Amino acid sequence: MKEKYMKLAIKEATKAYKIGEVPVGALIVKDDQIISKAYNKKEKIGSVTRHAEIIAIEKASKKLNNWRLDGCDIYITLEPCPMCASAIKQSRIANIYCGLNNSDENNINIVKSILKKDKINGSCNINCGLFSSEIEELMKKFFLSCRNKK
Amino acid sequence: MKEKYMKLAIKEATKAYKIGEVPVGALIVKDDQIISKAYNKKEKIGSVTRHAEIIAIEKASKKLNNWRLDGCDIYITLEPCPMCASAIKQSRIANIYCGLNNSDENNINIVKSILKKDKINGSCNINCGLFSSEIEELMKKFFLSCRNKK
Repeated sequence: MKEKYMKLAIKEATKAYKIGEVPVGALIVKDDQIISKAYNKKEKIGSVTRHAEIIAIEKASKKLNNWRLDGCDIYITLEPCPMCASAIKQSRIANIYCGLNNSDENNINIVKSILKKDKINGSCNINCGLFSSEIEELMKKFFLSCRNKK
Repeated sequence: MKEKYMKLAIKEATKAYKIGEVPVGALIVKDDQIISKAYNKKEKIGSVTRHAEIIAIEKASKKLNNWRLDGCDIYITLEPCPMCASAIKQSRIANIYCGLNNSDENNINIVKSILKKDKINGSCNINCGLFSSEIEELMKKFFLSCRNKK
């Protein structure tokens, strides 16, 4: 099942790639039902808050009529930034499955600290590595096309 | 000027208080012009992403037609959570002026790490303490009313 969901997240990432966005896709799942899916629209919408994860959380909250996404898991093609990791944690999502690790060691450490149990919320698990080479290819293709445009 | 802007942020926080939200307000300023203002709508909208800072960033990006908020400062009544701190940093806001410190030591350390210079963005300054006792009063009043409701 995890593979099926990550493949759908990659499909979302590909939609971002096609419109010239950093190719990141996200999918929120609860009880083996897809609750929401989204892709990065930072440039299109013109706001740093339009990462795939944030859009997916907002869609899921609307659908479930609750900011608490208890029992939900999120599939992301790339390890989240601190903004998204904190939004995921605050929305009570229990598990993050991500494809590709972030290459920035500093990002990894901050994200780990964010996901730990704190005064308000329990911990959130993170597992990386699903289809990472496929996702890396897509990322490389994107950054190559950016360089070629310049 | 800083006092004037923080007073306006407190006015926003009071709007949140009046509709039963955790009273947090935010104001984005550039070249002594108010670009956007917002207050916390997490419960009203039903999404963890509806913090005052995120709404203010989105409004400012729309107004300036750019996700890069270069030259902007943000005034917040409360020290930001990691989600908001990261959104502020990624949007290239240079200075954060906040009223009340977050009482959670763990939050403070994570926010400090987020705001440091990294591979992509420069550092973002943070200054806390403006009207902190006034803001603390508002926060206490809010949490007292929550307890009374229960």
